[in-house]
Amino acid sequence: MLLRMSSLFLRTLRDDPADAEVPSHKLLVRAGYVRRVAPGIYSWLPLGMKVLKNVEGVIRDEMNKMGGQEVLFPALLPREYYEATGRWTEYGDTLFRLQDRKGADYLLGPTHEELFADMVKGEYSSYKDYPVTLYQIQTKYRDEARPRAGILRGREFLMKDSYSFDLDDDGLKRSYEQHREAYIKTFDRLGINYKIVFATSGAMGGSASEEFLAPTPTGEDTFVACHSCGYAANAEAVTTPAPAARPIGEAAALQVLDTPGTPTIETLVDHLTTVHGIRVTAADTLKNVVVKIVTPGSDKVETLVVGVPGDREVDFKRLEAALAPGEPAIFEAEDFAKHPGLVRGYIGPQVLKDLGIRYLVDPRVVTGTAWVTGANEPGKHAVNVVAGRDFTPDGTIEAAEVRAGDACPRCGSDLTIDRGIEIGHIFQLGRKYADAAGLDALGPDGKPIRITMGSYGIGVSRAVAVIAEQAHDELGLVWPREVAPADVHIVGTGKENQVEVALQLAEELTAKGLRVLVDDRPSVSPGVKFKDAELLGMPTIVVIGRGLSSGVVELRDRASGVKEEIPLSEAADRVLAACS
Amino acid sequence: MLLRMSSLFLRTLRDDPADAEVPSHKLLVRAGYVRRVAPGIYSWLPLGMKVLKNVEGVIRDEMNKMGGQEVLFPALLPREYYEATGRWTEYGDTLFRLQDRKGADYLLGPTHEELFADMVKGEYSSYKDYPVTLYQIQTKYRDEARPRAGILRGREFLMKDSYSFDLDDDGLKRSYEQHREAYIKTFDRLGINYKIVFATSGAMGGSASEEFLAPTPTGEDTFVACHSCGYAANAEAVTTPAPAARPIGEAAALQVLDTPGTPTIETLVDHLTTVHGIRVTAADTLKNVVVKIVTPGSDKVETLVVGVPGDREVDFKRLEAALAPGEPAIFEAEDFAKHPGLVRGYIGPQVLKDLGIRYLVDPRVVTGTAWVTGANEPGKHAVNVVAGRDFTPDGTIEAAEVRAGDACPRCGSDLTIDRGIEIGHIFQLGRKYADAAGLDALGPDGKPIRITMGSYGIGVSRAVAVIAEQAHDELGLVWPREVAPADVHIVGTGKENQVEVALQLAEELTAKGLRVLVDDRPSVSPGVKFKDAELLGMPTIVVIGRGLSSGVVELRDRASGVKEEIPLSEAADRVLAACS
Repeated sequence: MLLRMSSLFLRTLRDDPADAEVPSHKLLVRAGYVRRVAPGIYSWLPLGMKVLKNVEGVIRDEMNKMGGQEVLFPALLPREYYEATGRWTEYGDTLFRLQDRKGADYLLGPTHEELFADMVKGEYSSYKDYPVTLYQIQTKYRDEARPRAGILRGREFLMKDSYSFDLDDDGLKRSYEQHREAYIKTFDRLGINYKIVFATSGAMGGSASEEFLAPTPTGEDTFVACHSCGYAANAEAVTTPAPAARPIGEAAALQVLDTPGTPTIETLVDHLTTVHGIRVTAADTLKNVVVKIVTPGSDKVETLVVGVPGDREVDFKRLEAALAPGEPAIFEAEDFAKHPGLVRGYIGPQVLKDLGIRYLVDPRVVTGTAWVTGANEPGKHAVNVVAGRDFTPDGTIEAAEVRAGDACPRCGSDLTIDRGIEIGHIFQLGRKYADAAGLDALGPDGKPIRITMGSYGIGVSRAVAVIAEQAHDELGLVWPREVAPADVHIVGTGKENQVEVALQLAEELTAKGLRVLVDDRPSVSPGVKFKDAELLGMPTIVVIGRGLSSGVVELRDRASGVKEEIPLSEAADRVLAACS
Repeated sequence: MLLRMSSLFLRTLRDDPADAEVPSHKLLVRAGYVRRVAPGIYSWLPLGMKVLKNVEGVIRDEMNKMGGQEVLFPALLPREYYEATGRWTEYGDTLFRLQDRKGADYLLGPTHEELFADMVKGEYSSYKDYPVTLYQIQTKYRDEARPRAGILRGREFLMKDSYSFDLDDDGLKRSYEQHREAYIKTFDRLGINYKIVFATSGAMGGSASEEFLAPTPTGEDTFVACHSCGYAANAEAVTTPAPAARPIGEAAALQVLDTPGTPTIETLVDHLTTVHGIRVTAADTLKNVVVKIVTPGSDKVETLVVGVPGDREVDFKRLEAALAPGEPAIFEAEDFAKHPGLVRGYIGPQVLKDLGIRYLVDPRVVTGTAWVTGANEPGKHAVNVVAGRDFTPDGTIEAAEVRAGDACPRCGSDLTIDRGIEIGHIFQLGRKYADAAGLDALGPDGKPIRITMGSYGIGVSRAVAVIAEQAHDELGLVWPREVAPADVHIVGTGKENQVEVALQLAEELTAKGLRVLVDDRPSVSPGVKFKDAELLGMPTIVVIGRGLSSGVVELRDRASGVKEEIPLSEAADRVLAACS
């Protein structure tokens, strides 16, 4: 492959695009790899296409090696498949919906569990047919509320999604492990720095699940890591170690106190200390947050109270994950008006059972713990409110914020908190979609066996952005060789025969199998050519410039910046060695 | 590449699918290459994916060789691009339209002229930048009124579309010729039998245009060919040679006759001969057909009368092509009620000028020709109605049906009529889209030069169907080698070590670079294996069966059906030779 800058459809930009905040977005636009068409919708220019195809090629190769079979589903899908699993409504505004000329409902596929389950059902019938793993590399659509960061979170994006079909849980675990291994190989080849973290399932339903996260300061996902035992999880999946329950007998009696003017935890703690002489901290208080839960596709609205220690906020993303597919919403003034038993600012769990309101608590609220909390009267709080005696929660919920320094659920050491971008997700789905499709295999005894599925995704276009996000410096992009648009960028600059020699070297290297980009532009200054070479980010750069008169050219390594003068006669061999 | 039937995600069907009419549809479904998801919307199974990727690869290769640069546009596009060129409305019901969560209008791209023009405008500014040719291989959407024949006319389909950008008409002609050559090479490599025919432009606007049509009896497109001079054109593009005009002086005077009960041409000719003793044929009558024309995006409805010789029908597709982007519709009884001057069944052109109705005639209706036509009174016709004397048309229109035996517009020989499927279209668009986008290059004199575009398409998924349509026999598919999912299909059958030997040979051939499909299914009868091998259509088949005990295997050529017994020891070399 030989690309000539003189005819390449490429114009680099001097300035960052106005709407770009993260490095990958700035650089991919400046270097002419992608262009914006609409919010979250991008076009790929020739160099960008090459990176995208290289990334796609690595993913396909590793999927084939693990025994995956490639298929291709449409993006335009009839409503009925997603109706059957409830996702037509569950997806809410994130789903692009449309009608055809006959008024039939369609959607643009955000993911394809339903279709894969249906396809396997159509082809396979016997237990002898299983297991099977199918995958596709296909364009997906999600109407993100906040498309951002260029191709990092797009509304139209390229994804590899695969699905495993097994007869039993052990088979599913094996398929899951095979995918895990394939993903490790894939991301290693792509040169991405990543961490594998425990994940919740989001709207997918099911059990074991891990995410591959690329740590970057601009990442949208928060994840928690323990540097002592290696535990890592996204914020939604972190579990809180529960302390041991205590005997209730020891606890002092509940006491209601006048606490006027204490709408916040801080004012309450201050009031108790200074007025009542009761020494407590925010961690000793029990904050009760009311939410309403809407379940998509249903008219029912449930009221729920969540109790967390007063020194922590409720993390809405954790709350959402814990309640999915239910969607929590803020309990507004008008909602309070309909529930006079809930005294805003002074809610305590003591009355919730009588009010018929469900109450879920942070795992730290174990039987026998005593709390300062609302007394369900304006201006009054209660102390020594004991779990198991004065109230009994309906269960626990992981909704409190996770903080750096919290105890690792595995080893108890301090957790750290970092940001990352999700690049892959592997997921033991279980039988949800097989149930919806009625996907059974006929067993050896003639009885049906319900198939169990795994679902595994890699964001292909997103991976391009993640690589750019991790592999760049202040001068521009620094592509890992396997995904770079070309192995070598030959810059010919000068008024003698430099461009001619550059083209000769380019031809020679192309003939030897290298992918070559040569800057043969006739009327572009050396400074611009050098800057473009740094910005575009091929891993190896050869400069054929002034030194040519003394038979010398320059060989640069883009990543390290190391430059070396070498004789032109050795250039081809040296470049080949550098690119191998 | 080594595919094992024992694990391949493939189930062949014994029976044709109920909804299939054409061979490619029947065979691609029966052989497990594609599956229907919704009307005109299909999934690709593993073998189908391989053919699709092979076809895509050939097209990409030839596009790259001609200097095309690959880019990729989104399918989900904001309305404004298509609003600017009027196609948001012109496309009518064929466009899939939708709204995002904010209520903004989007469409699923049916073709991408607007986006390409806009992209080039964004990157290029100087005349030195041109010419450039960009292409993409991308999923397109058209809400066809009658999706049919499986992937032959789908609503979601894969297309290669390319666009050339030139400074002047000569440049455009060169780009057009380059594409023409590249398409010839592409379709030759794909093993498609095709004809290049003159085409009209449809809704695209512009000038020179040719279609690549694959002749098949089931084709939707009619084309006309002259075996004497090689002229070929689709029915819409055929032009009618006009006879020479005649002096008006010679013609007899117009005469109105009572012709009761003659609503059809046949009854009229019969009545004139038997009652009035006037010997005419249907070809001497002038049939006047009223249509109304709706222009998409406009409320205006125009009434038009089309005059054709009475022995020919109006061909609605030709009429549509001639009037595009206007859309002709049938003139209904209620329309007649609003136009009392138009006497249904007895319309003659004599009164149209006074009625203010536009009148277009077949090119055969030249000045001085005399016609039998309506007298604009119920039950009356006029004879000796002379063009240029008794009426003056507003112009000519190519709307009359074309018939086998009509004169070739180039050499006058007899034309033949055949059916075909459009597989490619090349088109000198001109400046329509550059005008809409304001796409100019700054010329050497500092003045802007409006860019001229060409547009070139190949139906990638359709090509798979067309190959299947042309390359099959009563037993199944017969893939040309370059697009076949595998080079060789090795069938191992028997209760001894045949399957083992088949797998060994498969490994050996795979190591030598062949793409191999091996039937290693343990409990499938020889008959079923042979039938599947014929149905699936790999070009070379090796049967390792009963002969193995005497060291002999069978080598079959799928296309010719020729079978040969060869020693196992020579099998690898013989297969390699057959596949080269």
